Amino acid sequence: MSTIVKAAAIGGGVIGAGWVARLLLNGIDVSIFDPDPEASRKVAEVMKGARRAYKQMVPGGLPKEGKLTFAKTIAEAVADADFIQESVPERLDLKHKVLAEIDLHAPANAIVGSSTSGIKPSDMQVAMKKHPERLVVGHPFNPVYLLPIVEIVGGAQTFPEAIEVAKEIYASIGMKPVVIRKEIEAFVGDRLLEAAWREALWLIKDGICTVEELDDIMRYGFGLRWAQMGMFQVYRIAGGEAGMRHFMAQFGPCLQWPWTKLTNVPEFNDELVDLIAGQSDDQSQKWSIRELEKIRDDNLVAIMDALSKQNKGKGWGAGALHKSYTKQLADLASMKTKTSAAAAKAKASKPVKKAVKKTAGKKG
Amino acid sequence: MSTIVKAAAIGGGVIGAGWVARLLLNGIDVSIFDPDPEASRKVAEVMKGARRAYKQMVPGGLPKEGKLTFAKTIAEAVADADFIQESVPERLDLKHKVLAEIDLHAPANAIVGSSTSGIKPSDMQVAMKKHPERLVVGHPFNPVYLLPIVEIVGGAQTFPEAIEVAKEIYASIGMKPVVIRKEIEAFVGDRLLEAAWREALWLIKDGICTVEELDDIMRYGFGLRWAQMGMFQVYRIAGGEAGMRHFMAQFGPCLQWPWTKLTNVPEFNDELVDLIAGQSDDQSQKWSIRELEKIRDDNLVAIMDALSKQNKGKGWGAGALHKSYTKQLADLASMKTKTSAAAAKAKASKPVKKAVKKTAGKKG
Repeated sequence: MSTIVKAAAIGGGVIGAGWVARLLLNGIDVSIFDPDPEASRKVAEVMKGARRAYKQMVPGGLPKEGKLTFAKTIAEAVADADFIQESVPERLDLKHKVLAEIDLHAPANAIVGSSTSGIKPSDMQVAMKKHPERLVVGHPFNPVYLLPIVEIVGGAQTFPEAIEVAKEIYASIGMKPVVIRKEIEAFVGDRLLEAAWREALWLIKDGICTVEELDDIMRYGFGLRWAQMGMFQVYRIAGGEAGMRHFMAQFGPCLQWPWTKLTNVPEFNDELVDLIAGQSDDQSQKWSIRELEKIRDDNLVAIMDALSKQNKGKGWGAGALHKSYTKQLADLASMKTKTSAAAAKAKASKPVKKAVKKTAGKKG
Repeated sequence: MSTIVKAAAIGGGVIGAGWVARLLLNGIDVSIFDPDPEASRKVAEVMKGARRAYKQMVPGGLPKEGKLTFAKTIAEAVADADFIQESVPERLDLKHKVLAEIDLHAPANAIVGSSTSGIKPSDMQVAMKKHPERLVVGHPFNPVYLLPIVEIVGGAQTFPEAIEVAKEIYASIGMKPVVIRKEIEAFVGDRLLEAAWREALWLIKDGICTVEELDDIMRYGFGLRWAQMGMFQVYRIAGGEAGMRHFMAQFGPCLQWPWTKLTNVPEFNDELVDLIAGQSDDQSQKWSIRELEKIRDDNLVAIMDALSKQNKGKGWGAGALHKSYTKQLADLASMKTKTSAAAAKAKASKPVKKAVKKTAGKKG
């Protein structure tokens, strides 16, 4: 089982800082590079929120936090890291520049994960002249320190072993890695979100409902289902005693009905932005973004905690993972883990390097 | 505040039986008509599951259940009902036949709610020759006895007062009514679900992921967000300190990217059904549908209970409603409500009739 000895984070926005928080709270040292002069303050604020959430998750006390270092260059940040997570803005030219730099200066076998929401790893790794085989997309969802999911996507040049190591690394910090089988833009989660988002924009634009009404229809309705079972398992049940095949037969023909604005894209103009931003103010301006973040985090912890007690005490879905993750953190805090943190770190560097090397050998 | 004296349910499938369960568990008598010879057994099974879930919600004991009567005809079922919920299959000709019959035999001021997932009320109420003004769509989500949301939609002939009474009636049995502002097919929730479903079918068909992987991406990811905040409130936070406008500016252009199979509908053929039904078996066949229902219901109760303790103890979203609903049930059980059940029933019949009549007078 590969773990992380020393991590580097390139980019410290909402997503990058979320990664930093998850890593530090797992006791892992992180070196971060972000040219934004405000980066330090922004990361500290995310860290404050994450620490608050983790204290609720592990009431007996948290592991000793990893050490955070602000590096002056990408080269400095990645120099001795065995795991690097890139979270810079979604522009291919920028990704190329940053990944080339990372590749040039990182240890040869360090795994490089990209937080991109939609760019194909094949399109990014062309910029990595030395070791493109260790790039994977590791696409998380906000807030990264709480939501377990991470979509792992390999590109044309990615070694299968790098994907295996990435899976282990992400799992070692409490995440649920799902490897996407074929590389497509936006992967899986964002494709579903994009489809729903586009439809939602139409519903608002056409005055069918407000953003608050739409949100309520989700959170008093199917959102409660999707927090614990996904779409297909829910529909399997909806099929009743006859199951999935019955459900498909019953609802399949709907695909031909005019139920979505399928063939149109709403025009994205100032009017639409004003409409939605205005309605969003009506819905939420009584809370600051920081307050909303706290409410969201408290809710997420509470939901995962509630699910951790289901399924005859074994936990269900994100709750089962939450159960083992919070235990892992508590064990680390009290050093009840059989391997000490130091021993774990010493051990950790090997599998990553070996796995990637082995493949390199096979292919070479 | 309008409440229900005597309810009728026309159709006892998954949705119809879910309505029956919610009503009975609120102490309301229900007369049901369903020509299926198996209806009695099916309703009893849904009732068993619902009773089990409600016992967890109200551990101090449930209110005395309403009485369930199986009627031989629609006429008999609706004869003395002040609230009628229609849940027959989604065929317009069948809806017309059933609604015409209901309209002919129901008391003049009884509110008629239709469970249709997508047919416009204007297209249905043309079949009601006597009182089309009292038809609303009251679209619930499965399981009806647990999920609070109900979309209320009025048609061209529906009186605004009927919508008001319907809102009160649904709220009186613990639901969250959201009135849809303009009548469109599939309303709001099913439009979002349809958009996501269509995209999901592509992802499976193209071999990007399996149904289990897709479900995991939801339930370890954005499903946890949507159980407590909807899409817009979540994105407001994602915009960070700059808020919704920043988020829109950042992600708006994505609408033009090739991120969804927007302009195509997957061909719905045996191959697709086999693929999905087979993967669904792999994912879930270790549980029977009944077991999955129990797991789902336990999870839903646990999530709503967890959310009922958030937001400084006031509860949040579905949790705030859950808090007041379970209190209402407990009060009803111990008859701590100021009005006795009998008095409430006597009072209940008036507002519905009056509100609808008043409008009739205005328009006549």
